[in-house]
Amino acid sequence: MRNTNKCLLLYSGGLDSTTLLYWLVKEKGYNVNAVTLLYGQKHMKEVIFAKKNIEKVKNATHHILDISEISKFLKNGSTLIMGGKEVPKLEQISSEDKIQPPTYVPNRNMIFLSIAIGIAESMEIGEVYYSAQAQDEYGYWDCTEEFVKRINQVVELNRKNTIKIYAPFLNLSKSEIIKLGMNLGVDYSLTWSCYRGDEKPCGVCPTCVERLKAFSKLGLQDPLEYETLS
Amino acid sequence: MRNTNKCLLLYSGGLDSTTLLYWLVKEKGYNVNAVTLLYGQKHMKEVIFAKKNIEKVKNATHHILDISEISKFLKNGSTLIMGGKEVPKLEQISSEDKIQPPTYVPNRNMIFLSIAIGIAESMEIGEVYYSAQAQDEYGYWDCTEEFVKRINQVVELNRKNTIKIYAPFLNLSKSEIIKLGMNLGVDYSLTWSCYRGDEKPCGVCPTCVERLKAFSKLGLQDPLEYETLS
Repeated sequence: MRNTNKCLLLYSGGLDSTTLLYWLVKEKGYNVNAVTLLYGQKHMKEVIFAKKNIEKVKNATHHILDISEISKFLKNGSTLIMGGKEVPKLEQISSEDKIQPPTYVPNRNMIFLSIAIGIAESMEIGEVYYSAQAQDEYGYWDCTEEFVKRINQVVELNRKNTIKIYAPFLNLSKSEIIKLGMNLGVDYSLTWSCYRGDEKPCGVCPTCVERLKAFSKLGLQDPLEYETLS
Repeated sequence: MRNTNKCLLLYSGGLDSTTLLYWLVKEKGYNVNAVTLLYGQKHMKEVIFAKKNIEKVKNATHHILDISEISKFLKNGSTLIMGGKEVPKLEQISSEDKIQPPTYVPNRNMIFLSIAIGIAESMEIGEVYYSAQAQDEYGYWDCTEEFVKRINQVVELNRKNTIKIYAPFLNLSKSEIIKLGMNLGVDYSLTWSCYRGDEKPCGVCPTCVERLKAFSKLGLQDPLEYETLS
């Protein structure tokens, strides 16, 4: 008894996953079970925005799961986590460090996908989506095509339930994602990207720089008001 | 700067993982970081026993991580979780259901290993152990050699840190594990196996039956006092 019109989405409330939420609902006609994981991230604004987008998009249910006790264990490994070091400016990250930058959270995507797979299995949902995008300013090993392929090879061993991970934005650039989202009616003033936890996005951390560049490439203005640009 | 004398152990406080704890400390000379995950399991007695064994064994540090909010999402999928259905007697499980029995927790081992890998990476530990045992009365897909192999194929993609999962008891029978543990000085009166959450082990759930059989095969008496035997 599999729900074929349902899917599960790992939903942070960021630019990529909000676009994916819209794409799944508006383009693919899914009824989306969006799962937001609280893991002690500094950028909790994402979660507030996540809720707003879920309300706007209709046909989506929001599940928030708090595993933030994990931050006690991961904070030495990442600048993204509450209690960790300050998120650096993009220009402060050496090219050597770009292989595994200070904003990398140890094994985060495998942790998130494993939980999403477990929840999907309990809900009898066969499709799990996440908005990994391989072509970031710098890369993460857990946002690659090979990573998704190998995770699926693990899950294929399940003897009873077939669950598959999909990452449809894997080979899109940030500006291609924004272009897609604009056509689907995404309100990018309700998406948060900044890795720091301040009132306004900083404009200098890696994800702010990437986001600003992507809007600019499309000849568009990012609707968010930035700290350094104001 | 990798800690080569350290390893991380997924440690439930059950019979298998307690034997593995002793094996890692006494036989292999490791300094063990034992991670116990609270996921809303009914058999919380395991955790009390876990603490006692950590104290006894020396050279091990106990980390308890509470992700029990996850039980809200997984309880429909398993009888092991608080709020789920009653754990059946072994004899009540049909042979068809033995492929993926009602005591299976959706994707639990992948969730646990992913978290363990993340913690190991933050702690700069390269070796993660878990006490999967393939030859249970009935099998779980996430306790097999192929599962461990494929999880390792995912983690191999990490661009900076080498982490490997080991499951040295994969091909041991329950009685072989007990035999090994007896030689290492494990006190099996401090290991909990029963899947139900009662005062004494029930003696009829699948794991009680398996445990009793294993002791009996060695001509030994299980030091625990059972509900149905008293």
